[in-house]
Amino acid sequence: MKGPWAVGVDVGATKIEAARVNLGGMVGDSIRTATNVSGGPKAIIADILEAVRTLTERAGSDPAGVGAGIAGQIDRDTGSVRFAPNLGWRDVPLRADLEEALGIDTVVTNDVRAATFGEWLHGAGRGYNDIVCVYVGTGIGGGVVAAGRMLSGCTNTAGEIGHITIDLNGPPCTCGNRGCLEALAGGWALARAARLMIEEDPKGGRTLLEMAGGITADVSAETIARAAKKGDAMALRLLEDAGRALAAGCVSLVNAFNPCRLILGGGVVDGVPELIDRVRRGLDQRALPAARAGVEVVPAVLGPIAGVVGAGSLALHIRSDQGQA
Amino acid sequence: MKGPWAVGVDVGATKIEAARVNLGGMVGDSIRTATNVSGGPKAIIADILEAVRTLTERAGSDPAGVGAGIAGQIDRDTGSVRFAPNLGWRDVPLRADLEEALGIDTVVTNDVRAATFGEWLHGAGRGYNDIVCVYVGTGIGGGVVAAGRMLSGCTNTAGEIGHITIDLNGPPCTCGNRGCLEALAGGWALARAARLMIEEDPKGGRTLLEMAGGITADVSAETIARAAKKGDAMALRLLEDAGRALAAGCVSLVNAFNPCRLILGGGVVDGVPELIDRVRRGLDQRALPAARAGVEVVPAVLGPIAGVVGAGSLALHIRSDQGQA
Repeated sequence: MKGPWAVGVDVGATKIEAARVNLGGMVGDSIRTATNVSGGPKAIIADILEAVRTLTERAGSDPAGVGAGIAGQIDRDTGSVRFAPNLGWRDVPLRADLEEALGIDTVVTNDVRAATFGEWLHGAGRGYNDIVCVYVGTGIGGGVVAAGRMLSGCTNTAGEIGHITIDLNGPPCTCGNRGCLEALAGGWALARAARLMIEEDPKGGRTLLEMAGGITADVSAETIARAAKKGDAMALRLLEDAGRALAAGCVSLVNAFNPCRLILGGGVVDGVPELIDRVRRGLDQRALPAARAGVEVVPAVLGPIAGVVGAGSLALHIRSDQGQA
Repeated sequence: MKGPWAVGVDVGATKIEAARVNLGGMVGDSIRTATNVSGGPKAIIADILEAVRTLTERAGSDPAGVGAGIAGQIDRDTGSVRFAPNLGWRDVPLRADLEEALGIDTVVTNDVRAATFGEWLHGAGRGYNDIVCVYVGTGIGGGVVAAGRMLSGCTNTAGEIGHITIDLNGPPCTCGNRGCLEALAGGWALARAARLMIEEDPKGGRTLLEMAGGITADVSAETIARAAKKGDAMALRLLEDAGRALAAGCVSLVNAFNPCRLILGGGVVDGVPELIDRVRRGLDQRALPAARAGVEVVPAVLGPIAGVVGAGSLALHIRSDQGQA
């Protein structure tokens, strides 16, 4: 890997991924460690520092910057983490701490926004000025690029597309609302719907339950995807419901944002790629024709490295556009 | 009115409003004519030209530009009207026709976007870089300013916020989808809901029916607003349902766009100003706290002149930012 490079860091609830990223979005050497949530910010920051130093040493050259994506709300001006529920963080001055320890310019952003930045610069959104990324994993997150800029909003929380309401009478969401897109099509919601369905119809749910080792609480989106592949009726019905909800949410996004590309990624989409066609059909049937005509629905291409690619790229580009984070 | 000025034109389905607008957003002399829909584009364009010439003659100075807002899809590059269902227009080269006849730089935009531009520059959104305008009239339209730019999207149709899905099992919308915000909270939807409710419960609907002259088909959002002011239970219930739907839609908008100001306007909001407080309460209960904290919910202040102010201002500003239309 030649030329200037940055360290991209993706801080997730279970693992921290750090990698060298160059201007072409190529990922070189990388390091993965388990996230030491119980150790608090201090332990995690120490692990990030360790990773950056190791990558630098092995590279034999200094990084031009460090970019960190983290699941939480980030203060745009200071790069502090206001709130990261999965890590239990509140008001952690991540950027200041990293910069002080490393002496390297650092940028901190939301993890999903980092992934969107990666897909925009080096993935499925490359060359487009208007894209929407929808990541369907345990929850649903996303990012929006409009007129060639990443939307960040008034207080840097724009793009919470998992929490658009698609059924105002729908089931409760973890956010306190009802009928959010995430509460109908996210991985945790799929698992919840499966548990309820199995309770109501134990016979129909036998296959699902068996595949989860007989423990209802262990039925996950992944179990459902596997059962659906075997033709299990209940699993297929659960995916049909989730697909319908995801399509409805995407109709809202296409009508509101009018993107050129709607990019679908995340564990659930990777496990059930049929969802992409389901969304296409939903848009055909229900989106405004003028908005539908403008948008191509495509899978994300960077997969699990989108976060590090995006965070690293952000660090390389940040000097020319402070507004992009 | 001193200094440079432009003509702002608001082309609606029933009337054309044209006015002198200066850099301060002040409206001077104005002309209103009925929209000659049956005469086709030729008749309407002739009326616009006539209005511009009359305003110019009376002013004794030439306008710096002409801005026209029109209910339809506009081609961003050519200023042609791709489709304006209410006028029955398809592919009308409005900008080219006006420029050729007048010899004055002209900008053509969507009418609701023009109004949003007016509120942004000279109304309730003044000084903010992130605003969402929601206009609740017969239908629901809106506009979004993000990071100091009007969102236009990939094919210039961004901001169709009346057609975000808020109830995927909801009643049909005119757009072909179901459960759109407009299909639950727009003026026509309120009237439809009233008709259904009166049919089901003629006794409870007596007041509403009487106020509409005994003709069910004549019950309108305005009838409902008047009946609600008198304490009519059915009217109050209709407004409660519509308010709940409007609040749910605004939760989606606040979570997705994270605006600093959410601006509510349009005939239904003007007639039922309590809807503004209903939206505030809905956001308190259901929006993501970080997004809720950043947004102030306020009424539009320019009222029916927002369109001409916005279109005229756009014409005055267009040279410095072609991207704003």
